[in-house]
Amino acid sequence: MTAQDCLFCKIVAGDIPSTIVYEDEKIIAIKDIQPVAPVHLLIMPRKHIISLNEVDEKDINLLGHIQLIAASLARENNIAANGYRLLCNNGAGGGQEVLHLHYHLLGGRNLEWPPG
Amino acid sequence: MTAQDCLFCKIVAGDIPSTIVYEDEKIIAIKDIQPVAPVHLLIMPRKHIISLNEVDEKDINLLGHIQLIAASLARENNIAANGYRLLCNNGAGGGQEVLHLHYHLLGGRNLEWPPG
Repeated sequence: MTAQDCLFCKIVAGDIPSTIVYEDEKIIAIKDIQPVAPVHLLIMPRKHIISLNEVDEKDINLLGHIQLIAASLARENNIAANGYRLLCNNGAGGGQEVLHLHYHLLGGRNLEWPPG
Repeated sequence: MTAQDCLFCKIVAGDIPSTIVYEDEKIIAIKDIQPVAPVHLLIMPRKHIISLNEVDEKDINLLGHIQLIAASLARENNIAANGYRLLCNNGAGGGQEVLHLHYHLLGGRNLEWPPG
């Protein structure tokens, strides 16, 4: 399932270049091109899901998998010990800019509170 | 599995009062007592897991379930349409204050960028 005009679907398809740091049959992770922390990765499903507003029970494994891979990427990028923030923006008010579900993994500096 | 001195384990056990907005056999969701948005909920597993640094494959369903319940709580609290942010702080540098895995669900105002 892809959406014709979706930036992240084009990245998943390889039609737009990106720095892929992880991929498997369900998800990919790339570097954010406008990082707000020394480590700033985006983890997304290959299939086009707009946001958490569109998920249901059939996606439970996909969503759990994203959390596990986030933890794994945190270790690989040496931010696990000091700490990191994993977050998902949903909808305009949540700060979502690309309408393809993705989680931001942020670390390498101390994350402040409130979180936006 | 509980940790004797864990604030959230005490909340899960009912030994410390909280405003529970959702509960099932695996997780509970409560109102944050220091909200930073009109809707600010905490979603956590009943069992004591410190952070995403401690999860593994056996937790995939639990972690996916948390994402699904977050989406459901967003709808119930009327923040799904305008948007919301779901986030998990891991470790001191990530802003984690209680060492029991929990996800913050924030909405009811526009969330800013960067996210902390």
